[in-house]
Amino acid sequence: MSSTRAPIIVLIAPQMGENIGMCARAMANMGLSELRIVAPRDGWPNERAVAASSGAHAILEAAKLYDTLESAVADAHVVYATTAREHRMAKPVVGPQEAMEQSRRRIGAGQSVAILFGRERIGLLNDEVSLASAILTIPVSQDFPSLNLAQAVLLIGYDWLRSGGDEGELIGFVTDLGSPPAKRAELFAFFSHLEGELDRSGFLDTTDKREAMVRNLRNIFHRTEMTEQDVRTLHGIVRSLSRGRGGNSG
Amino acid sequence: MSSTRAPIIVLIAPQMGENIGMCARAMANMGLSELRIVAPRDGWPNERAVAASSGAHAILEAAKLYDTLESAVADAHVVYATTAREHRMAKPVVGPQEAMEQSRRRIGAGQSVAILFGRERIGLLNDEVSLASAILTIPVSQDFPSLNLAQAVLLIGYDWLRSGGDEGELIGFVTDLGSPPAKRAELFAFFSHLEGELDRSGFLDTTDKREAMVRNLRNIFHRTEMTEQDVRTLHGIVRSLSRGRGGNSG
Repeated sequence: MSSTRAPIIVLIAPQMGENIGMCARAMANMGLSELRIVAPRDGWPNERAVAASSGAHAILEAAKLYDTLESAVADAHVVYATTAREHRMAKPVVGPQEAMEQSRRRIGAGQSVAILFGRERIGLLNDEVSLASAILTIPVSQDFPSLNLAQAVLLIGYDWLRSGGDEGELIGFVTDLGSPPAKRAELFAFFSHLEGELDRSGFLDTTDKREAMVRNLRNIFHRTEMTEQDVRTLHGIVRSLSRGRGGNSG
Repeated sequence: MSSTRAPIIVLIAPQMGENIGMCARAMANMGLSELRIVAPRDGWPNERAVAASSGAHAILEAAKLYDTLESAVADAHVVYATTAREHRMAKPVVGPQEAMEQSRRRIGAGQSVAILFGRERIGLLNDEVSLASAILTIPVSQDFPSLNLAQAVLLIGYDWLRSGGDEGELIGFVTDLGSPPAKRAELFAFFSHLEGELDRSGFLDTTDKREAMVRNLRNIFHRTEMTEQDVRTLHGIVRSLSRGRGGNSG
């Protein structure tokens, strides 16, 4: 059994070294590291793969070469065949998100998962698909469905990465605003400062409309998640603009 | 207001025609169609872009060329800046899934959404990020985070495509603010008015600190979902407070 803690990427008979290199780069982007290559057209190792990998050399150096698909996936517990077409086979068809969530569970249980990618243009042959446990189809626009090899690896890798909860973590640091959030009292003090100056400058009507104007004005700032620093800045602005007009806050 | 029913992809100063072409292909894969290009290094149109687009010619032919980022996003209501780094700005940071779900709600409510992508290697400059409503960060492996332009477009487009799964349910809970949401051009005009007065009043240092002060200031307003009425009100405030100090806007 493989000790890999992420899915194994298996490229079947890839033609261009560049594509193998770009697949390695996409794998590295998404935290995948184990690459297996079955019968590459131009042999192995391949200089063009190295040049196109943008520095993902470790993956290429560790890549394993196989003569047949059967031997490349012999130790896998689950094999997904990435296809654009349905192949009309009595086999489950899953999307990348579902497949990667399944994979994470399987790998967590000590199993090994392989994902097959076919040769450029032609893709996987029916015989090859028949060796997979399930078909993995990437959702794309029906008007323009053609993805290259590295793009397909990238998108599936993306769902692998996210199945680990990474986007969730990312969203967690959304509102580090660099300064503590302003308390309401600080906001109210700013309102009072601003409205005082606007009364003096004649901006706020003293008629019935004043109340509605003040409400709208306050709402602009209520809707913002303001920090203490922001409130200090706004005070500074009002003070600076009012200076010379004889405002009280100059 | 743009009638686009999907986010607009905005490439800032792209260098290689090949990358523009591959972006167009990635857009087509994911059902995106509106491309805007700001100051491409090698001019426009570009034969290499066409060659690299794998047939996504319609997107390149319809692409619009701009001199400045400001003009390219003038009609957008929401602008996401795609960055790998945090830029240490007081601006929300969202992942692609959340950003595309937000975008689908905004677009469903008749708004227009733009997504900025920076030049190769260097990415977006701080000044460019300062014009965006939020920072969009793609989750990638921390050990190998570098994505090329087309890969970044592809991954965000992928989440756009998938966010369409439950479109019907998502549309409709955008807050009714009682006035149409402000377009970026309206916000930019307000920035220019406010910053002009603050220069005259001496609030903004003319030293190194000016740039950072301006960025922080803009971010206070970027974080608010402002309406056209709000922007008019803020103009009125700045005009009124500056009056008598000999400001130009009195």
